[in-house]
Amino acid sequence: MKQISLEIGSGGRLMQEFIRDKIVRVFNNRYLKPLHDAAFLPEGLALTTDSYTVDPIFFPGGDIGSLCVNGTVNDLVVSGARPEFLSLALIIEEGIDMPDLEKILLSIKKAATRSGVKIVTGDTKVVPRGQADRIYINTAGVGRLISRPQPERINPGDKIIVTGPVGEHGLAIMLARNNFRMSSKVRSDCAPLTFLLPLWKKGALWMRDITRGGLATVLSELADRLKHPLLVEEEKIPLSRAIRGAVEILGIDPLYLACEGRALIVAGEKEAAQILKYLKKNPASRQAAIIGEVQDRIGRPGEALLRTRSGGLRLLEPLTSELLPRIC
Amino acid sequence: MKQISLEIGSGGRLMQEFIRDKIVRVFNNRYLKPLHDAAFLPEGLALTTDSYTVDPIFFPGGDIGSLCVNGTVNDLVVSGARPEFLSLALIIEEGIDMPDLEKILLSIKKAATRSGVKIVTGDTKVVPRGQADRIYINTAGVGRLISRPQPERINPGDKIIVTGPVGEHGLAIMLARNNFRMSSKVRSDCAPLTFLLPLWKKGALWMRDITRGGLATVLSELADRLKHPLLVEEEKIPLSRAIRGAVEILGIDPLYLACEGRALIVAGEKEAAQILKYLKKNPASRQAAIIGEVQDRIGRPGEALLRTRSGGLRLLEPLTSELLPRIC
Repeated sequence: MKQISLEIGSGGRLMQEFIRDKIVRVFNNRYLKPLHDAAFLPEGLALTTDSYTVDPIFFPGGDIGSLCVNGTVNDLVVSGARPEFLSLALIIEEGIDMPDLEKILLSIKKAATRSGVKIVTGDTKVVPRGQADRIYINTAGVGRLISRPQPERINPGDKIIVTGPVGEHGLAIMLARNNFRMSSKVRSDCAPLTFLLPLWKKGALWMRDITRGGLATVLSELADRLKHPLLVEEEKIPLSRAIRGAVEILGIDPLYLACEGRALIVAGEKEAAQILKYLKKNPASRQAAIIGEVQDRIGRPGEALLRTRSGGLRLLEPLTSELLPRIC
Repeated sequence: MKQISLEIGSGGRLMQEFIRDKIVRVFNNRYLKPLHDAAFLPEGLALTTDSYTVDPIFFPGGDIGSLCVNGTVNDLVVSGARPEFLSLALIIEEGIDMPDLEKILLSIKKAATRSGVKIVTGDTKVVPRGQADRIYINTAGVGRLISRPQPERINPGDKIIVTGPVGEHGLAIMLARNNFRMSSKVRSDCAPLTFLLPLWKKGALWMRDITRGGLATVLSELADRLKHPLLVEEEKIPLSRAIRGAVEILGIDPLYLACEGRALIVAGEKEAAQILKYLKKNPASRQAAIIGEVQDRIGRPGEALLRTRSGGLRLLEPLTSELLPRIC
């Protein structure tokens, strides 16, 4: 590849290859190598970062402000860390309206308060008109480890849980761009996952927030790390009515649509039942479901398989090309 | 102000007001309030962040890669912290040449190795053509506190030290844009200030890296925090021959030009002499100089004064409007 293409930023296979070949190989160190959502630092700290370039900056269910807090908070939560401190760096395009900026800043404050994190340091850059698109935001997050993910303890029979309906953020952004001239009730699921923190003490072995690349990509990447294949049942994957309607009309696979407030959790059978009970009590995850399990009979190591509604088996590949750029 | 203007990003007075009124007031907390270059977290940690949007991305003396490491490293050093870990978040414009990106990544690695910091986590976003300008980079840095700056212990008679000639980064960027069709030997001073860390144990009371807004802005901001005015002597401020020549031709005040490898240090008279001795031994700061002192006879509290070569006194105001956007 001679030039960087949009696909590099899609969260899919090309991005994984880019990160492996161009980033990890260059900066090779033991903190970076595990490629989890956050780095585990000495003394029980975790550090993570994300830049947010979402377009449009205001969308049903959220805005770039709530997204830049929740996204980074969630990366810490699924890494086993309680989010504590955020940095906030703004790259603003000259000419953005002050009321829009103020609305975003208030949204950041509201989201930070909701998750119990403090914005402790920051940076502001302004670039000339035409050298950004309204505003890009970077947050880095520091959290305190409660427990470390234990993918090495995942075994056949362990259950795969999804904490709620998938695809809402991706579809909300897609429709907000109005490319399809379609009205819909779909709202982004953008929300903090801090309510999942107690699950690290209830037997969760692994968690991942479902973002770029969607559920299929997360499952495929997880399978890549395990000695055993994964199998999920299509009919068990929660989808909202609005998503069902829209994806049918548009012919989009909801398993590749991003979420910003959902996670995948793996736990032993007994623990999974307790975790599901806990999730169903929480309004943010009352549609949580066990969607499948780690296999020792069906599939080969490295594979994530989907049993379709018609009973067939489909291999879930990671997203390869960009569904839409600037989803988060 | 109804729209964000380029001046907000200049490091000058408008930026200070924006940060005070729109950021600190909204996110009001005890970590953010001191507005130092880094936030002081519990357990002796410091956190800082900066986004880098420099144009051009390659310039004499450095590139956006060395800049995004050294800038964040230096913010930690002047906050009294030994830099340990960096996050790295790339916002890449579709179409940037892979060899350019690889060159930048290697430059990041080299700079990180030189400063002894590890890149431990990251993020990659790609935005469509025309929605960024080649590449913007954010780094957040975590450091371990050696000592906390003690501006409250600064008293009349304390000395003001600058660690080397000022203005080189700003002028190098200005000339690299080729707006002046002028050739020059000026190179950016972009470099890590980690060699200053031992000075925290040698009596340094306060340090600040001289970046956007230049020496004049840093002095003016320092004076704003102190009970006593500052006085510096123009003839003692180190300037390289190349800078002297260029600023004369262009009619630019070098005191408002950014550096990326220089710091201002305040220390008591005795300690300042020892600090100067230490600095002069180091090749990176052999042109260090004591340029002035904290006053109790000349000026009023809050003032930073310059005694000009002709003997007059000039009040140093913080930069108010943008010299040039995207300097760092």
